[in-house]
Amino acid sequence: MIKLKYTLVLTSILLCIGCNEQNKQIADTPVESNDIISIQKQGTFAVGGSVKQSPGSFDPIAHGAFNPTNQSTEGQTLHGDHASVFYQIPTEPRKLPLVFWHGYGQSMRTWQSTPDGREGFQSIFLKKRYPVYLLDQPRRGLAGQSLEPKTLEAKTEDQLWFGIFRMGEGKRFYPNVQFSKDPEALNQFFRSSTPDTGPLNINLNIEAVSQLFGKIGDGILVTHSHSGGQGWSAALKTNRIKAIVAYEPGSNFVFPEDNIPEPISYVGGTLRAKGVSMEEFQKLTKIPIVIYYGDYIPETEVENPGQDQWRAALSMARKWKKTVNDAGGDVTLVVLPEIGIKGNTHFPMSDLNNQEIADVMYNWLEEKKLN
Amino acid sequence: MIKLKYTLVLTSILLCIGCNEQNKQIADTPVESNDIISIQKQGTFAVGGSVKQSPGSFDPIAHGAFNPTNQSTEGQTLHGDHASVFYQIPTEPRKLPLVFWHGYGQSMRTWQSTPDGREGFQSIFLKKRYPVYLLDQPRRGLAGQSLEPKTLEAKTEDQLWFGIFRMGEGKRFYPNVQFSKDPEALNQFFRSSTPDTGPLNINLNIEAVSQLFGKIGDGILVTHSHSGGQGWSAALKTNRIKAIVAYEPGSNFVFPEDNIPEPISYVGGTLRAKGVSMEEFQKLTKIPIVIYYGDYIPETEVENPGQDQWRAALSMARKWKKTVNDAGGDVTLVVLPEIGIKGNTHFPMSDLNNQEIADVMYNWLEEKKLN
Repeated sequence: MIKLKYTLVLTSILLCIGCNEQNKQIADTPVESNDIISIQKQGTFAVGGSVKQSPGSFDPIAHGAFNPTNQSTEGQTLHGDHASVFYQIPTEPRKLPLVFWHGYGQSMRTWQSTPDGREGFQSIFLKKRYPVYLLDQPRRGLAGQSLEPKTLEAKTEDQLWFGIFRMGEGKRFYPNVQFSKDPEALNQFFRSSTPDTGPLNINLNIEAVSQLFGKIGDGILVTHSHSGGQGWSAALKTNRIKAIVAYEPGSNFVFPEDNIPEPISYVGGTLRAKGVSMEEFQKLTKIPIVIYYGDYIPETEVENPGQDQWRAALSMARKWKKTVNDAGGDVTLVVLPEIGIKGNTHFPMSDLNNQEIADVMYNWLEEKKLN
Repeated sequence: MIKLKYTLVLTSILLCIGCNEQNKQIADTPVESNDIISIQKQGTFAVGGSVKQSPGSFDPIAHGAFNPTNQSTEGQTLHGDHASVFYQIPTEPRKLPLVFWHGYGQSMRTWQSTPDGREGFQSIFLKKRYPVYLLDQPRRGLAGQSLEPKTLEAKTEDQLWFGIFRMGEGKRFYPNVQFSKDPEALNQFFRSSTPDTGPLNINLNIEAVSQLFGKIGDGILVTHSHSGGQGWSAALKTNRIKAIVAYEPGSNFVFPEDNIPEPISYVGGTLRAKGVSMEEFQKLTKIPIVIYYGDYIPETEVENPGQDQWRAALSMARKWKKTVNDAGGDVTLVVLPEIGIKGNTHFPMSDLNNQEIADVMYNWLEEKKLN
C-alpha cells in the first residue's frame, strides 16, 4: 500500500510541468525512500495552567506605560503554569497520536533534530504516519510563564550533566558511545538544555498533560527520564493514555501504598517510591507499557554518581515491572545492551543509532497493535 | 501549474487503495485548496552564543551527583546565549527562505497558530513554498540558557500588554478589533508570552541572527515590534539579508550619525534613534524593506500610553523611511487602515484577518521579485 502511494506521488511529481532541480532530485530517489513529510495540519497551543490575580483595579491611563523598574501590578492578571504543545498531523494519520514529553532541563527540543543534525523522533514517527505532539511542560521552554518567581543562576554545570546523561565521565566520552565526536554535536547538545523558569512542580506538569489528553483524546505517551514517573501519575489521572513508552525513567515510581519498596541509596542520593491506593494503582495494569534503558548502567554500586543513580533507577524499574505485572499488568522492560544494542546514553532517542531505537519502539507498538 | 500539481496529487489520493475517512475528506476538498504542507526537511538547531568557564577542574566522582542546593561549579562550562531555530523546508522550495523573528516577551509562537487556533504565517508561507525559519532569540523560549543570572518575577501584567499590544484599553477590546471575542482566544494569547531568562541584550540577539544568516545563506528577514530595530542592525552585520519585512517596529531605528532625528516623547517614555556611520547606513539602502503598522495609532498625542507609544514609533518610522529613501533606498511604509485594512492590533500576523495580511506581504515580495 505504502509503496503504491509513493509510486503515485512520484508519478505526480514526474508529470509535473515546470519541475525544478528540487523536483528532479526527489524524482531520482527510490520510491520506498519515504523522505517527505506530508502534513495536513500543524500548530501550537497552550494547555493547563491557571491565572494569578492582583487585588485592586487596573488604570490603563495611569499604569499603561511599560516601566521595567516600577510597574504597577494593581488589578492585573498573569496567565501561566500551562504547557505548550506543538503538533503535526500527517496525511493518512494513524489513529493514536504520540505525545512526547521531555526530561529534566529539556524541552520539546529532545525529540527534534539530534545533536549531530539528523532527524529526531518527531520526524521519524511523522514519516511513519503518527500524529506527533511535542510538549514543553509548565515553566520550561515556550511554556516559560510561571506564576511563581524564580531566580535563574546560570551556573556552569555542563560536565555534571555530561556525567548524569551517561555520555562519559568528566570530559571524556565512554568508549564506543553512540554520540558523534564532532565538537559541534556536543555544542548543540549542551545548547538544547533550557532552565526551569519557575519552581519545579510535578503536580502542575501532571495536570497539564492530563488536560492535554482530555483535549486531544486517546493517545500514546512517550516519556523521558524525569517525565517517566510523572507519566505513571498522568495515566492515573486520565484514561485517555492508552500506552506508555518510557525512556530511562528516573524517579517517582508509583506503587500500591501497602507495597512500597525500600528506598534505594546511590552515590549522592536516595531513590524513594510513591504510594497510591490499590484501586489507583490498578489503572497502570490496564495499558501496555514499555521501558527502555541504555548502556553504561552498572549492576552493582560504583563510585561514579553519574552512573550510580541509574543503577538505582533500573533496580527500582525492575521492582515496578514485577509489581505491575503481578497485578495483571503488561510492562516490558528492555535494557538495550541485553538485546545487543550498545553504547546508548541517557538519550537513546537522539543517539547515533536513533533510527534503530525508533524501530525497536515501532516494533513494540506493532506488537501491541497500537498502529 | 499549482492547479495541475494538486490535481495529480488528488488523483494519487483517489486512486490509493485503502483510503480511510481522512483521505475521503481530503479528496472532497477542491483541488485549489492547497491544504497540505509537504516537508522535505525540518529540524531545530542552536546558533550563536558563547561558553562560560569556571576556574578549577571538575571532579566527576566528588561533584558528579546532582545537588540542587549546593552544586560545585568548579572547572565546569555553561553553553548559553544562543538562539534556537526551528526550520521547515517544503518540497519545491522557493529560493529565499523567510526568517521570522518575534518581538518583546514573545517567541517563535508568534508565527505559529493564531490565538483562535487558525494557521499562522509559519504554515501560510510554507504552503506558498517558502522555507520557513522560526527564531527564539537568545534568553527566550527554547533558547532559555542565559550565561547571566536573572530573577523572574512573575508579575501580573497581562492588562499592561493588552494595552500596549493595542487590543484595547484596560480590559475592553477596541471596537471592531480583529481579535476573536471567544475568551479562549485571549487565554491562548496571554499564554503565548514567555519571559526573558536573562538580562535583555540586543547585541547578543543581533549577533545570533547575523550568524544564522551566515549559516543558511541569503534570505528574507521578517521582524515584529522589538526585533524591528534589531533587524536593521542585523542587516548591517550581514549582507545575507536580502529584504526585510517589519511588522510594527518600535525602537532602535538606525540613522546616519550626523542626521539623527530629535527624540520623540510619548506618554511614559522617550523614543531615541541610534546613529551609525554613513557607510554603514548605506547598507540599508541596498535592500527592499517594507514596514507595516496596524490600527488604533493616533496621529497626535493621546493620554493612553498603550496607543501613544505607537504614535511615536510610527512618526519615527516615517522619518526613517524618508532618510533611507533620500539616500537611495527602497523603503515602503504601509499603515494598514490607509489601504482599507482596519482593526489590526500590534500582531497583524495573528489577527483574525491574518490571511489578508499575509497576502499583502506576499504581493510585496512578488513586486520586489523575491519569489
